Amino acid sequence: MGDISLEELQLATRNHGMPLEALRYDVTPVGLHYLLIHYDIPAVDPQSWTLTVRGTVQNSLELTLDELRARPAVEMTVTMECAGNGRARFDPRPVSQPWLSEAIGTARWRGVSLPSLLAEAAPLPGATEVVFSGLDRGIEKEIEQHFRRSLPLTETTDALLAYEMNGAPLLPQHGFPLRLVVPGWYGMTNVKWLDTIDVVVQPFEGFQQATAYHFRHDDDDEGRPLTRMAPRALMVPPGIPEFFTRARTVSLGDVELEGRAWSGHAPIAGVEVSDDGGESWAEAELGEDGGRWAWRSWNYVWRPQAAGEYVLSCRARDEAGNVQPVDAPWNVGGYSNNSVQRVSVTVTARDLL
Amino acid sequence: MGDISLEELQLATRNHGMPLEALRYDVTPVGLHYLLIHYDIPAVDPQSWTLTVRGTVQNSLELTLDELRARPAVEMTVTMECAGNGRARFDPRPVSQPWLSEAIGTARWRGVSLPSLLAEAAPLPGATEVVFSGLDRGIEKEIEQHFRRSLPLTETTDALLAYEMNGAPLLPQHGFPLRLVVPGWYGMTNVKWLDTIDVVVQPFEGFQQATAYHFRHDDDDEGRPLTRMAPRALMVPPGIPEFFTRARTVSLGDVELEGRAWSGHAPIAGVEVSDDGGESWAEAELGEDGGRWAWRSWNYVWRPQAAGEYVLSCRARDEAGNVQPVDAPWNVGGYSNNSVQRVSVTVTARDLL
Repeated sequence: MGDISLEELQLATRNHGMPLEALRYDVTPVGLHYLLIHYDIPAVDPQSWTLTVRGTVQNSLELTLDELRARPAVEMTVTMECAGNGRARFDPRPVSQPWLSEAIGTARWRGVSLPSLLAEAAPLPGATEVVFSGLDRGIEKEIEQHFRRSLPLTETTDALLAYEMNGAPLLPQHGFPLRLVVPGWYGMTNVKWLDTIDVVVQPFEGFQQATAYHFRHDDDDEGRPLTRMAPRALMVPPGIPEFFTRARTVSLGDVELEGRAWSGHAPIAGVEVSDDGGESWAEAELGEDGGRWAWRSWNYVWRPQAAGEYVLSCRARDEAGNVQPVDAPWNVGGYSNNSVQRVSVTVTARDLL
Repeated sequence: MGDISLEELQLATRNHGMPLEALRYDVTPVGLHYLLIHYDIPAVDPQSWTLTVRGTVQNSLELTLDELRARPAVEMTVTMECAGNGRARFDPRPVSQPWLSEAIGTARWRGVSLPSLLAEAAPLPGATEVVFSGLDRGIEKEIEQHFRRSLPLTETTDALLAYEMNGAPLLPQHGFPLRLVVPGWYGMTNVKWLDTIDVVVQPFEGFQQATAYHFRHDDDDEGRPLTRMAPRALMVPPGIPEFFTRARTVSLGDVELEGRAWSGHAPIAGVEVSDDGGESWAEAELGEDGGRWAWRSWNYVWRPQAAGEYVLSCRARDEAGNVQPVDAPWNVGGYSNNSVQRVSVTVTARDLL
């Protein structure tokens, strides 16, 4: 991996990942969920804020936060991952937010069902997509813009307009007062600081939809848009870390490995573990199903036979037959890098502190 | 600035800074306060956890969380900064957690006064220091260790054993179930996941006390320990950012600059602003005093006379006569870099979105 630039470091210090030991929690504690904030966190006054639903609809809507909160509420536990997770592991490294493997998190979101709100607005014949506009704004590739993304009407079924996260009002950095949550899709879909919902006839061609977030083999490739999360398993790095290198040390003996796995395409069917860098694999035990959109816990008792150096990996497969690759394909934007995690571990014969 | 290594990036993705637009909040929202976690976040069972107070005392204590919560509570708003804040701006760059300028935050901490607990334990004649041990452990410079720091008994006056942050139980990453808060001191003093308090006669010589966190001019310098936070002012970068470079653009006209300033030595006496990279300075207006240990807000209406490129800076001075330097002195560990912030801004004659 080449060295990281100042620009990448600036992004890394702003946009934080989830320390992987937090894989131990079913629901990620507040403040440990990953964050990718394209521009600045906007300051939103909830008293004057309203949500506008408009466009190719029979009934335009303008709703206050209180009006949204007065509607029937839906709650879902959802695992979310940045489409750029793993980017900094590609070689050559695509230059943007330099995620390693920590751009993940799981939260309990509570809010209003998007289909119910759209039904109220009543899309007119010809409507095909919904465009979500956030209040966050900035400049990207010389284009001044609000963060905006669209979703086909056919993909809105499970989506939520969330005003609560983990039982409390949304925090500023998670989109206060309202955000979109589209379970199973990569993070950029889940527009924060939601301001306007436009029902449209023509495909939305905004920057974040038509230019960014495409999987392109090379610069000439038109690419395909990123949508649902590819399957991935991650483990809590076992033992204790060295401060600077994060290298792990465990004592010889049984080591309880644990982690989580998820896929936006289908439920997790299994997780395998390797202690020889991917030469051989053994099946892990899956934990309880925490719901269709939540990650699945897994456990594996690792019994290293001797002190020495090991490389631990895990990989997930889902019920649609998607298998996490040992090495995911490089692409221009550095998206969807679900190559298996590699955790170097020193097994020592001595007891640790 | 030279390029950043994989090891530094690993730390940057774990240990997050406070996005500087969050300087707008008196109290930093949960999840935006900076975090520096030396090893891993330990999993602590609050049911079996106890705090032990022992050593050169008349009465050893062992207290449950409920027993601590049943005592008279103290609440304080405290600004905390990592001693390594600004490290990555030094040239050559000391290699460790690569902070730029965002390793800060302000929280409302609630807990038990440390002096009251120490009075109950009743230090015996000869006792000079208190050693705080955390449950977090790892390896640093080949030494296996729990995170441990000491404080002279004479410096314990304002300290708190906190079980709440911003009105809720401590989050795992902030030291659940109990942490030390020593207002005015750099972050490493505020031991998290507190387990044991030892009252001792001899100066504590543990790694984090005697080796790390020293200001050393060169490798032969014995150095002096880092203690209280040097004065610093920071501003919310104005206007809107470019995604990758974070470069700022504002429209020509009055620009309301705002920020915060603090010093661990004495209350803030004033903040100055420069728009020419530190050639000339103008006095900002200080906001209300939020308490001795909280940062002080400041405002300044900047009136750029023409479109063009500017470099904005701010600097603080405190009532003890400490003035923030334009360029702080380099040191081996990269500590206490309170060089003034430099924010490059493009002023454009056009209106922004």
